[in-house]
Amino acid sequence: MAETSVAARPIGVFDSGIGGLTVVAALRTLLPNESIFYLGDTARVPYGGKSAATVQRYSVEIAAMLLKENAKTVVVACNTASALALPRLEETLPVTVTGVILPGARAAIARTRSGHIGVIGTRATIASGAYERALRALNPDVRVTPRACPLLVPLIEEGWLESPITDEIILQYLAPLMNDGVDTLVLGCTHYPLLRNAIARLVGDKIALVDSAQNCALAVRDLLQRENLSAPESARAKLAVALTDPPDAFLRVAREALQLDVGEVEVRTL
Amino acid sequence: MAETSVAARPIGVFDSGIGGLTVVAALRTLLPNESIFYLGDTARVPYGGKSAATVQRYSVEIAAMLLKENAKTVVVACNTASALALPRLEETLPVTVTGVILPGARAAIARTRSGHIGVIGTRATIASGAYERALRALNPDVRVTPRACPLLVPLIEEGWLESPITDEIILQYLAPLMNDGVDTLVLGCTHYPLLRNAIARLVGDKIALVDSAQNCALAVRDLLQRENLSAPESARAKLAVALTDPPDAFLRVAREALQLDVGEVEVRTL
Repeated sequence: MAETSVAARPIGVFDSGIGGLTVVAALRTLLPNESIFYLGDTARVPYGGKSAATVQRYSVEIAAMLLKENAKTVVVACNTASALALPRLEETLPVTVTGVILPGARAAIARTRSGHIGVIGTRATIASGAYERALRALNPDVRVTPRACPLLVPLIEEGWLESPITDEIILQYLAPLMNDGVDTLVLGCTHYPLLRNAIARLVGDKIALVDSAQNCALAVRDLLQRENLSAPESARAKLAVALTDPPDAFLRVAREALQLDVGEVEVRTL
Repeated sequence: MAETSVAARPIGVFDSGIGGLTVVAALRTLLPNESIFYLGDTARVPYGGKSAATVQRYSVEIAAMLLKENAKTVVVACNTASALALPRLEETLPVTVTGVILPGARAAIARTRSGHIGVIGTRATIASGAYERALRALNPDVRVTPRACPLLVPLIEEGWLESPITDEIILQYLAPLMNDGVDTLVLGCTHYPLLRNAIARLVGDKIALVDSAQNCALAVRDLLQRENLSAPESARAKLAVALTDPPDAFLRVAREALQLDVGEVEVRTL
């Protein structure tokens, strides 16, 4: 019966802040029996402009807090942490770790026809080259055009999801990729699904969008099945959300946009 | 001769990141003989969206690092930390502490004719109500209209100092204040002097801008004179800059915009 009890433990999910709730929303839809413990490092958010060494240190600290919550597996619901800290986490943690980069890269390779893939993300994610490496490892012939979009996260956190200013900023960032013949665009930041409608409207139907949150959730489902870690169907799934700093206005934006019932939010001081 | 040696010690200046270099630039112009040790907490930047408890804890840690550098006085070159942590720092530190709020409030009271003052800043600065309290303590009859502008810092860090998109965002934030008859606007964030030209062009000459960096430097000059802590005129002033995370693109933006010779930047791990 030991295995049943492991399977009943929660999936541990972390992000630098609130953006990773897009991954939680995708997991809840796909795996309604799984309990989830989500930890957002809002006391040090954002990771996207910080160095690899700092992001690795923060990621290891936060993952250790998830293990204390008895997580059966850890999901890195943050592209920056996935890009910079995944190998370190895989070395350090006694449980399996799923990031967002490889699932997104696989989906993009499956989608592209022209073989030209665009990737957008934070400065740190783009500077890491992690998507390019993952895409080229899957198909060495693929052409990759990356673009850092550091204003999109603050725009989302301001709640300007549908605004002419947001449209202009998206176009400023994406016009070069659109002109360059990209046919598939990886939304390489877990905040970006909240701008999915606006981005889809602006790039039109010639470019397919690959949502790293959605593909990460699919990868977690496969992993749990493969490792025999799926929660029993009778399980009563719980969602717990903890943050390292008390919630601000963005939690409301995310809750409403994702229609996620987050309940009481705990604060865990670092 | 003990006093001379205290006077020769550096002014310690801190900010959550790089924005406080606007205060350093103002200090260098006003007090060319003073050595400055600047510490930017880039590993945890920004403070502007975080809770009072977290900002206080970070501020006390960073100020302690300045004391180790032998700072003769501490300047809080960050509106958020000034708004949330100044009393705590004054209790804790064995040296004088100067923030940016009170100097800015004094300058705004001296400037206004209509008695209606606007204040812009980060979410945390505005939510603290610190400027309103400071302004009303100086003149209870003044009317204050605050506005949080969370997108301005990321726009500045992206280097979009003169861009039609930046103009639109500034107008989106400031139009209500302009329509409401504000005659004086406090730039209540040490990043904002980098947008001073754009803001001045958009609000026109009916609104006077109060630059918290400039007024903070004036307050430090007065304090050093009053306390007999001014560096001797023969002093060879040094500027040292340390950050808690390695510098990124924004340091270049700030250096160029401020024409500040920063030299080698040290990294101090927290």
